[in-house]
Amino acid sequence: MPKPPLPPALREFLAQPNPSVIGSLDADGAPHTAATWYLWEDDGRVLVNMADTRKRLENLRRDPRVSLTVLGKDEWYRQVTMQGRMTTIEDDTDLEGIDRLSRHYTGEPYARREQRRVSGWIEVESWYAWHGGRPWTG
Amino acid sequence: MPKPPLPPALREFLAQPNPSVIGSLDADGAPHTAATWYLWEDDGRVLVNMADTRKRLENLRRDPRVSLTVLGKDEWYRQVTMQGRMTTIEDDTDLEGIDRLSRHYTGEPYARREQRRVSGWIEVESWYAWHGGRPWTG
Repeated sequence: MPKPPLPPALREFLAQPNPSVIGSLDADGAPHTAATWYLWEDDGRVLVNMADTRKRLENLRRDPRVSLTVLGKDEWYRQVTMQGRMTTIEDDTDLEGIDRLSRHYTGEPYARREQRRVSGWIEVESWYAWHGGRPWTG
Repeated sequence: MPKPPLPPALREFLAQPNPSVIGSLDADGAPHTAATWYLWEDDGRVLVNMADTRKRLENLRRDPRVSLTVLGKDEWYRQVTMQGRMTTIEDDTDLEGIDRLSRHYTGEPYARREQRRVSGWIEVESWYAWHGGRPWTG
């Protein structure tokens, strides 16, 4: 799998509010997947945010290895998958992280202000992409 | 996580041609994710199909543990995730498997008849579901 940086066309795609699924590892090493909002950061990292009760947070604190598949919004067999590590996990005390994600996806700050949430940044180590059943190299 | 069978509302949702992402394990144990077509079978198993060159096939032959997250087509923060094992892997010699999937998603048989493909069936061992940020129990 290629290493970063990703080609410009893929970075443009990742900058859109696309559906995505994050893969982590359960305690027994089994794969665990979950839908997630993500935000492509200018420095090439990826921000995600979770309620502090989510199983994937427990997983990522134990083993930071992570895989994120981003699907096209209206054409979901276009995909970009990034593998890497969640190198930073921070309490989202003022909900700044989830508000950034919520504004990106919905245009509004996050509604449920009572939740305890956590921001995590993924350092991308490798990636692959498909479009229309063929490799997408940008 | 609850065990099968899934509640009727979730089974109805899974019977639609929804976007989905499959998680498997790389040789070093890292999570690997990829967009996939899936077909919910009447017996509660899930059919997927891959070109025989795909990394996830190599992964699933080595370790059958698998996780599949299915997203709502027009409302993708509705999700059903199933964890289990790929208990059956068969060469799709006559392309019957990929044709079933292709008809389900596109209405047409699969276009690329020259590919060597493989069908895999997932036995669901546990599941969880979310809808609108809250657990979805059917």
